[in-house]
Amino acid sequence: MSEQPIVRRRVVKKGISDARTNDSRTQSQYDPYKDAAWGFINHWYPALFTNELEEDQVEGIQICGVPIVLRRAEGKVYALKDQCLHRGVRLSEKPMCFNKDSITCWYHGFTFDLKDGDLTTIVGNPDDKLIGTTGITTYPVHEVNGMIFVFVREDDFSLEDVPPLSDDLPFRFPENSEKFPHPLWPKSPSVLDDNAMILGMHRTGYGDWRIACENGFDNAHILVHKDNTIVHAMEWVLPLGIVPVSDDAITVVEDEKGPKGLMQWLFTDRWKPTLENKELGVKVDGMNSRHYRTSVVLPGVLMVENWPENHVVQYEWYVPITDDTHEYWEVLVKIVKTDEEKRLYQQRYDLVYKPLCLHGFNDCDLYAREAMQNFYSDGTGWDDEQLVSTDVSPITWRKLASRWNRGIAKPGRGVAGSLKDTSLIFKNTADGHRPGYKVRKIEE
Amino acid sequence: MSEQPIVRRRVVKKGISDARTNDSRTQSQYDPYKDAAWGFINHWYPALFTNELEEDQVEGIQICGVPIVLRRAEGKVYALKDQCLHRGVRLSEKPMCFNKDSITCWYHGFTFDLKDGDLTTIVGNPDDKLIGTTGITTYPVHEVNGMIFVFVREDDFSLEDVPPLSDDLPFRFPENSEKFPHPLWPKSPSVLDDNAMILGMHRTGYGDWRIACENGFDNAHILVHKDNTIVHAMEWVLPLGIVPVSDDAITVVEDEKGPKGLMQWLFTDRWKPTLENKELGVKVDGMNSRHYRTSVVLPGVLMVENWPENHVVQYEWYVPITDDTHEYWEVLVKIVKTDEEKRLYQQRYDLVYKPLCLHGFNDCDLYAREAMQNFYSDGTGWDDEQLVSTDVSPITWRKLASRWNRGIAKPGRGVAGSLKDTSLIFKNTADGHRPGYKVRKIEE
Amino acid sequence: MSEQPIVRRRVVKKGISDARTNDSRTQSQYDPYKDAAWGFINHWYPALFTNELEEDQVEGIQICGVPIVLRRAEGKVYALKDQCLHRGVRLSEKPMCFNKDSITCWYHGFTFDLKDGDLTTIVGNPDDKLIGTTGITTYPVHEVNGMIFVFVREDDFSLEDVPPLSDDLPFRFPENSEKFPHPLWPKSPSVLDDNAMILGMHRTGYGDWRIACENGFDNAHILVHKDNTIVHAMEWVLPLGIVPVSDDAITVVEDEKGPKGLMQWLFTDRWKPTLENKELGVKVDGMNSRHYRTSVVLPGVLMVENWPENHVVQYEWYVPITDDTHEYWEVLVKIVKTDEEKRLYQQRYDLVYKPLCLHGFNDCDLYAREAMQNFYSDGTGWDDEQLVSTDVSPITWRKLASRWNRGIAKPGRGVAGSLKDTSLIFKNTADGHRPGYKVRKIEE
Repeated sequence: MSEQPIVRRRVVKKGISDARTNDSRTQSQYDPYKDAAWGFINHWYPALFTNELEEDQVEGIQICGVPIVLRRAEGKVYALKDQCLHRGVRLSEKPMCFNKDSITCWYHGFTFDLKDGDLTTIVGNPDDKLIGTTGITTYPVHEVNGMIFVFVREDDFSLEDVPPLSDDLPFRFPENSEKFPHPLWPKSPSVLDDNAMILGMHRTGYGDWRIACENGFDNAHILVHKDNTIVHAMEWVLPLGIVPVSDDAITVVEDEKGPKGLMQWLFTDRWKPTLENKELGVKVDGMNSRHYRTSVVLPGVLMVENWPENHVVQYEWYVPITDDTHEYWEVLVKIVKTDEEKRLYQQRYDLVYKPLCLHGFNDCDLYAREAMQNFYSDGTGWDDEQLVSTDVSPITWRKLASRWNRGIAKPGRGVAGSLKDTSLIFKNTADGHRPGYKVRKIEE
Repeated sequence: MSEQPIVRRRVVKKGISDARTNDSRTQSQYDPYKDAAWGFINHWYPALFTNELEEDQVEGIQICGVPIVLRRAEGKVYALKDQCLHRGVRLSEKPMCFNKDSITCWYHGFTFDLKDGDLTTIVGNPDDKLIGTTGITTYPVHEVNGMIFVFVREDDFSLEDVPPLSDDLPFRFPENSEKFPHPLWPKSPSVLDDNAMILGMHRTGYGDWRIACENGFDNAHILVHKDNTIVHAMEWVLPLGIVPVSDDAITVVEDEKGPKGLMQWLFTDRWKPTLENKELGVKVDGMNSRHYRTSVVLPGVLMVENWPENHVVQYEWYVPITDDTHEYWEVLVKIVKTDEEKRLYQQRYDLVYKPLCLHGFNDCDLYAREAMQNFYSDGTGWDDEQLVSTDVSPITWRKLASRWNRGIAKPGRGVAGSLKDTSLIFKNTADGHRPGYKVRKIEE
Repeated sequence: MSEQPIVRRRVVKKGISDARTNDSRTQSQYDPYKDAAWGFINHWYPALFTNELEEDQVEGIQICGVPIVLRRAEGKVYALKDQCLHRGVRLSEKPMCFNKDSITCWYHGFTFDLKDGDLTTIVGNPDDKLIGTTGITTYPVHEVNGMIFVFVREDDFSLEDVPPLSDDLPFRFPENSEKFPHPLWPKSPSVLDDNAMILGMHRTGYGDWRIACENGFDNAHILVHKDNTIVHAMEWVLPLGIVPVSDDAITVVEDEKGPKGLMQWLFTDRWKPTLENKELGVKVDGMNSRHYRTSVVLPGVLMVENWPENHVVQYEWYVPITDDTHEYWEVLVKIVKTDEEKRLYQQRYDLVYKPLCLHGFNDCDLYAREAMQNFYSDGTGWDDEQLVSTDVSPITWRKLASRWNRGIAKPGRGVAGSLKDTSLIFKNTADGHRPGYKVRKIEE
């Protein structure tokens, strides 16, 4: 401006307080985390439920910016890069398979071996010199108890280095029962356990996967759930908040082998429930507490033990699709041994857990995460947020994730979401299609 | 290109003419204006109509890239930054208030004093050390005759420097009657006058606020309105254009106190109506002229005196939301002293002014502004436009606004519109939601 | 990352094979082509069908980022830059013409001579000094046999250098009959021929025009069409692919005068149809071959001779609108001499060719092109694609187009698509409008 008539008395009144817990020294300890908008790569992620991939079915998904095609052949699930090396189309958009050993690109007939991704032939050009010299990346698959997990690796991450799935799943019991005793409930089942019955759902969340993940084990966000139907139906009385009162409120697990993560000592004397706020005249009367315990491990897997009922565990994943979308997975696991137990669990899931917990309760988390998106998506939030004592949970997570992740995914190239604003996306949006996790099949 | 077979005779035939009125010397006088895509900050803007904010109601809006939450408590309106300092969510998305003195963030319970924005408590964490050390910015509010005005300031603009609302409103009468006599109509009422009855509407315009503002007092755009129903219903005969014929066609007001703006001497001998274009064989026969006068003051407030009928004034604001959206306000003001006068004015507004003027007539301005958006939004227009003598009005405005604005808003950070193309926006768009001014409440 | 626990054995297993045909030396020969996202400028393109522009009708389109307005006056079609030099609105959005010689901007009355684009008057400001000193660019028009072609030039490309339309149309017969004999069918008609009847359609494709163009004459993409209704209705048996078996499989034409392009010697001994893939156990039995021949010339015009039936030729254009949209033109040309021949041809077009060929068959090409868009739109594909022997066709085209184009269009400025993500576009998208080729008229 050429002239400025107002002499400003610049009295900075509001700003970043020195009293916040994430001062600059703390922030420097989780710098790598701030770079992980596209996720942590070289980790195991859930891809599909078993019942989403029947024999010979082909589906395309995207994780950490990597397009992945899954096909089940002879019962076994194979996962390959879902981008033809010829001209880049997704094989899954229009599945074409001539036998049980391969998948063929529907466009120009490039055919890949399901086991190793090698280019084995080209339908109409079987003598081309490219054949046998190249291929597409494959991804290890582990299917268990109704879930298909995929190890999403960088092209140059050696298959010999792939860790077992259990390294990327929450702490298991009874092997951790001594380390993390839980007097209030029986040993928590794992998705890997015999007779584990897994029920759940997944859907696309429109925001950064980290923001979603942090919400899962954030002990202060309980306020969001105070009017949830499940809370009132069960006559639970939730505290106003849960505040850490001891330096060992959280245990970080970083043993050489096994999952890397944190366990929170909720509902012990290391965390104090807040029952009253005198300033506001708010008080919780009586307390039919729902005792649970949350922990999280890399690459972002939540375990909520003893939730939503005894003998049940809830697991959640926030699988990065792009830097601003993730696939939100919620599953409940229970050990069931007889058909009658299975029937009853299924019924309870269908009629209570799914509508009131996975939807009713957790839908509130979905909108809370979306509500943070503007603040974080342009980078503002990572610098300007003013965290408090209850945020010891996400801060601890950010630090350990920065230390122990196996790789920070690079921004997607040549895939959905690498550009956000192409005319093709606008066309699809005008037609009512949201960005999503699964590839939409070509309709002829 | 490696080879270029065509030898080109580069004869520049078309381009920027030296005969345009905004040559480079003129342009250099309004450089700051070109930087003001996000608006002029540290000014008064209309926020809501009184009837849009009942007791205890909470609404969120955005002005100059600043998210603002308004709440009425004990009749008084308070305005605060609508971005929780903790994790950045908008307080207004899911209003939560425990008393008349504060507003609480629905997510983690951070509670702010309505009067000064101080963080006074956290619902579930009342002893945290952050409390009392920080807060969010507040915005002065002035409510008058059914309109709520907010002073949108930078965080470090001192409250002591806030000028009276009248400094950001059009010239008033009778105090300016001698300076700007208006023989053809009685003194024009202000929104601040006793017994002023204000009727109007506001809606989101999809374009740069400056382009919208300039259209309001551009005397050459009359062509757009030639087929408007109100024109023909009233049997007005509009000239083809109005051309300045004297150096004092416009008076710039830049007194030390009071509004900074310009007054146009329309329908005097300083402007000549064009009644014929011989080149095109177009002629206006007879003339039942609707005499009006337009002026504009910072931060972009239009006054159209004696419009659309005698004793009525139209005011317009083009409130910047982002760099490519603005809230378009149109209000009509009349002095009414009895209930019967009120009833008649309301009726005339509902049945004539609103459908035929605020909509019919001004809707043409809306599409004209959108039509300019491609040219200006990427910066092309500011350099390539070729202005003519009738554009003395916007040029004069650009210069005075460059000299007298109280601050150029910085691009929004961490707010709606700071990124334009997130997946969350595409999701909302696919669901049929346009970008807008008011925060959409969370639906549970 | 501060610590990295995994020692990675970086064994690059998959990647770009050395055996691909487009090695870096080859790629360097088509660098200019990679820069031509916005198209080749200073070329002839189809703009509209004759029946889309009646006397006095005004339509706006965009080619190579250039907004163009077409008007027919006294039967003759004129084309001018569709961007008022005053404030940049498109003249075509709300057509206003006071006589047969000019077009007037609906906003402020700037009036341009149809023949040379000069600013001849301003409706309400006829004495302004800008008049006669400036103007907008005009574009040569050639209308023939129901199609309107426009020469889209840079502002400084001299009218004296404009070549004849035939330089930008496919090779003609009989003048090329000796050079390119076609024993299997009669001489192929041109859109320029006497008695040529042209039937067809155009629509917007959501992707890069180059990707679309390359698909047109790519001999390996036949797999996409194997289940098309027309193929089975006609009992055609298509080969699995067609492979070049001789160095002269393609002839490049780059004579000083006339079109620059390539001719493919399909269904001669220079290309071998693949009838079997032993690896996959796939075989084509018998062969009721549909003999055709494809060629392409600058600026991207496909000719498919003897297709879809004898005596008929299909032409296609992929007219760049922006860097990620193009107008896809498909026309069929036949010589018809009597009214009865016309009636029968029209009937066959309406009932067979249009639904089964221009739609059914070519719709598959549309989705195939969209499927490549993510790979190429962020630049990834141009570097990472691994082409094979059958891709000699696009590679040859890329090289010759790099050598012989008359200019690479600069990214659009101040026009639709120069910014992809404005709030105005989101508003239109929320309302269900896709980005498109023709200007949508203002609705009052």
